[in-house]
Amino acid sequence: MAFTSSTPPTVLSIAGSDPSGGAGIQADLKTFAALACYGTSAITALTAQNTVGVLGVHACPPSFVELQASRDLNFIASVLDDLEVHAIKTGMLCNLENTKAVVRVLTAHYKGSTMPPLVCDPVCVSTSGHTLLEDNSIKAMIEELFPLATLITPNKSEAELLLSYKNVSRKINSVEDMIFAAKELLSYGSSAVFVKGGHLTASTKDVEDISSRHPAVPVVRYGLMEDNMEILQTDAETTVFELVVDILQQTNGTTTMFIRPRIDSRNTHGTGCTLSSAIACALARGTGLVEACRYGSAYTHLGIETAYGLGKGHGPLNHLHSTLLLSIPKRTPSNPYPFTRLLIQSTAKPWKEYVEHSFVRQLGMGTLSRKAFEYFIKQDYHYLKYYARAYGLLATKSTQFPSIESSAQTILYILREIGTHKTYCLTFGITEEDLESTPETSATMAYGAYLIDIGVRGDSTVLLVALLACLLGYGEVGLWLKKQAAAPNSWVKVVDNPYQKWMDDYSGADYQNAVHLGLEVIESRALADAPSPARLGEWCGVWERCTRLEKAFWDSAMAEA
Amino acid sequence: MAFTSSTPPTVLSIAGSDPSGGAGIQADLKTFAALACYGTSAITALTAQNTVGVLGVHACPPSFVELQASRDLNFIASVLDDLEVHAIKTGMLCNLENTKAVVRVLTAHYKGSTMPPLVCDPVCVSTSGHTLLEDNSIKAMIEELFPLATLITPNKSEAELLLSYKNVSRKINSVEDMIFAAKELLSYGSSAVFVKGGHLTASTKDVEDISSRHPAVPVVRYGLMEDNMEILQTDAETTVFELVVDILQQTNGTTTMFIRPRIDSRNTHGTGCTLSSAIACALARGTGLVEACRYGSAYTHLGIETAYGLGKGHGPLNHLHSTLLLSIPKRTPSNPYPFTRLLIQSTAKPWKEYVEHSFVRQLGMGTLSRKAFEYFIKQDYHYLKYYARAYGLLATKSTQFPSIESSAQTILYILREIGTHKTYCLTFGITEEDLESTPETSATMAYGAYLIDIGVRGDSTVLLVALLACLLGYGEVGLWLKKQAAAPNSWVKVVDNPYQKWMDDYSGADYQNAVHLGLEVIESRALADAPSPARLGEWCGVWERCTRLEKAFWDSAMAEA
Repeated sequence: MAFTSSTPPTVLSIAGSDPSGGAGIQADLKTFAALACYGTSAITALTAQNTVGVLGVHACPPSFVELQASRDLNFIASVLDDLEVHAIKTGMLCNLENTKAVVRVLTAHYKGSTMPPLVCDPVCVSTSGHTLLEDNSIKAMIEELFPLATLITPNKSEAELLLSYKNVSRKINSVEDMIFAAKELLSYGSSAVFVKGGHLTASTKDVEDISSRHPAVPVVRYGLMEDNMEILQTDAETTVFELVVDILQQTNGTTTMFIRPRIDSRNTHGTGCTLSSAIACALARGTGLVEACRYGSAYTHLGIETAYGLGKGHGPLNHLHSTLLLSIPKRTPSNPYPFTRLLIQSTAKPWKEYVEHSFVRQLGMGTLSRKAFEYFIKQDYHYLKYYARAYGLLATKSTQFPSIESSAQTILYILREIGTHKTYCLTFGITEEDLESTPETSATMAYGAYLIDIGVRGDSTVLLVALLACLLGYGEVGLWLKKQAAAPNSWVKVVDNPYQKWMDDYSGADYQNAVHLGLEVIESRALADAPSPARLGEWCGVWERCTRLEKAFWDSAMAEA
Repeated sequence: MAFTSSTPPTVLSIAGSDPSGGAGIQADLKTFAALACYGTSAITALTAQNTVGVLGVHACPPSFVELQASRDLNFIASVLDDLEVHAIKTGMLCNLENTKAVVRVLTAHYKGSTMPPLVCDPVCVSTSGHTLLEDNSIKAMIEELFPLATLITPNKSEAELLLSYKNVSRKINSVEDMIFAAKELLSYGSSAVFVKGGHLTASTKDVEDISSRHPAVPVVRYGLMEDNMEILQTDAETTVFELVVDILQQTNGTTTMFIRPRIDSRNTHGTGCTLSSAIACALARGTGLVEACRYGSAYTHLGIETAYGLGKGHGPLNHLHSTLLLSIPKRTPSNPYPFTRLLIQSTAKPWKEYVEHSFVRQLGMGTLSRKAFEYFIKQDYHYLKYYARAYGLLATKSTQFPSIESSAQTILYILREIGTHKTYCLTFGITEEDLESTPETSATMAYGAYLIDIGVRGDSTVLLVALLACLLGYGEVGLWLKKQAAAPNSWVKVVDNPYQKWMDDYSGADYQNAVHLGLEVIESRALADAPSPARLGEWCGVWERCTRLEKAFWDSAMAEA
């Protein structure tokens, strides 16, 4: 299933509330959130329950659930009237009044238009034996709600109960029974029936037998070995004999068998709610029914397998196994450069020591010793050679012509800068021969070679991060000095400052355009890549290292003076 | 805030239900999920509402919310008795009975023990003017609930209403008024007061004035420029004059001012619910109060700024801006190698064409022409030189001694394999000179140079992916042939097969150990890195390319025969 960053589909749950958070609308809302859907929920009943059992049920008043003359006072209508809903699931309906209310409001709202996919989880009795749908309501659910449903999702006991309303008295104890039940229950009018086998156990042999007796039934596997996966076989795997089988029967006559390994777990509270919600999320995105069932089943399976074992009884599933916290906030108008901001914030102290270095301050005051500046400019000449070479590596690491071109353009830009550099140096009486013959100092080599090291060992993104510390830092220095110069009684010497040209260059439009280009590139890279915390940590580490190397570069110039 | 993959903290919301999903326990549960907390919720009242307004309220029966002789029939107790709760938030309490019930159950449950942090959002009236807490209940909330609270979070009108209960009649129209109110409201007994300024507007100058009048008040900024961020300044930023200011007052006398840019948005439904929930999540993790308020405020701010504009009125926030869907399922006992499984599944067809290649089949049958095998083994000799060199690149790209060592060990393993290779070749009458003098074919060069290319341009993880296609593929071939050989009436020739040693080598313990080591390394890398869909796509692309190059390698051997 492909997820985009566009508006999420809206899914509506019509069900009971479980304060302990593992089942009911709470499980539904967690599933919707985990699968990036917008969740809404109309509550049919309040239960007091936890992982141990259901302690009490309070039906919501008919005036609230039922469709009335004034539709305003209706949970479901308040949602449907305002939001376009892309899938609906029903869970615990509680009693006859509320069951009928649900049918009426759905029928009325979608009169003359197409109802979105409706997944009906026919919740009747809790695992602990508590009645969640009063007996007199089951007939209404079958006769009035099922015909509206895209899918109904009974478990073993629910399927048996539903069969009994057809006067079919058959216990479901095998996959063959499940197939029988799925076909029988289809006559109630839903477009498909998904009989859940979580309360049964099947062996590999059972599945093979069924497959040989029903050769036309496709088998959808999850968490089991497929062809050409011998290397993934572990010892644990070879001893898995217990399988869970689910059966999907569609009105077009297709039967599908879903198999997965059985997990030995007490954390199964809310499994049915979660499954039907996850299927509804997939259907809301337009996923086909078989794939939606596979997807919902896999999501639920992993929720059980990764559960934390909360509570004293049957613990809740882990609904959040499918999600990750973003390391970098989204780009928004009020925060257009969130990644660079994060880099700067994560290095606030060394970054400030770099961009407000005494070298920079003295340069602004015009008091910087000629010796220090000459030292700096000679070493910068060597540094820029490394810097240009690192952009060569960036070109090597680029797989698209535009980024190859941009690296080459940057190299040419640096070479032009070197030209200006040389002309500028001549005004200080430094010739090109002087520049070339000046030995590199440790500060220069450390920084230059570090860029090459990152360029050799990392990918293009981390190399960009390393290269930007210089580009952005000098841009910051230029703007900072300009801002200081503009302040009243500024300490910046703006008349007859020997370093005026240097300051003008870095605050000028040309250089600042390059800064903004750099910001755009790195922000869109970071946005597209959504780094894990580990990867972000690596980027921040490289940025900090470069920041400190920049400071050390100026330290050594000052030490020279 | 650091998030770990350990058990999430449990947070309890005691509030009303908003079926449209933007406010109430629905907003709370979404916030808890988005911030990786385990959410629970006790419902005090059902509302029928949507983005346009509140259409009706149904108070939950006292028997359900109130603490009774039998505590079992109680929403809150059903949660607290079963789960350890790490933070609690209260929202809409609806009426006097429910307010008192909340106080009684919390007091009784935490008698003799420490109550977790309690954030009390004093919801009184909806934005649309609907009463959400009956007038006769406010006094009880102030006198009985506030003294239990870590933090209360009134907005402008709630703060004014609460002040009036102290006979203080003061409208809150400035930051100065907010500071006054925060200090006054502290006397109600909560540990801290957070007065929200979302309904006020402040300018940069207001904030500067306040700062100069209250120099001891620290300013926490979000989404605004800080020092040394001149380069991040955009045109939009320079025109932002409108700020939102929140004030936090603590009993230790500390006042903190939070400022952020005002967002012009209609999507503000459920802002207060979301903020108090996000603060509760941070407190549940043990975050300090100031940081928790900053965090909650930033989360809510971004929720408004990234909202999708659902509904016809005040739309809901986007609660999911902080999360990302995982590209690779978590490692579990039933799926210990999810990343490799995904690689194989994503290339099912070419992978099968590779590992079940006619070269392999004929080799198993013993019918492979000597010429084809000789061609293969000579080219393999050249290929292994590239392969060893690529591991050299891997060593270069490793920053830890263990991974540098593992690369070096692999190179030595490959060189030993070359030794065996040479001995083996001699049995076919092929000398080392023959091997060295055989020209490389295109298939060999394409594959070998591709490994070097990936090694030069990517990071160590993608290079590992490229290297594993060969390691794992040959392991799969070995096991597949072994499995086929074990089947009844096998087509594999196990007696007098000239290629027996080759088959034994790749299915043998030595080689399979290397396969499992490779699986462990790549799985833990992928797990630690949690790649974005784009990065995973790149990895899958490299894997598929290698799979096809492996097939082409054998194609060329067969073409030779």
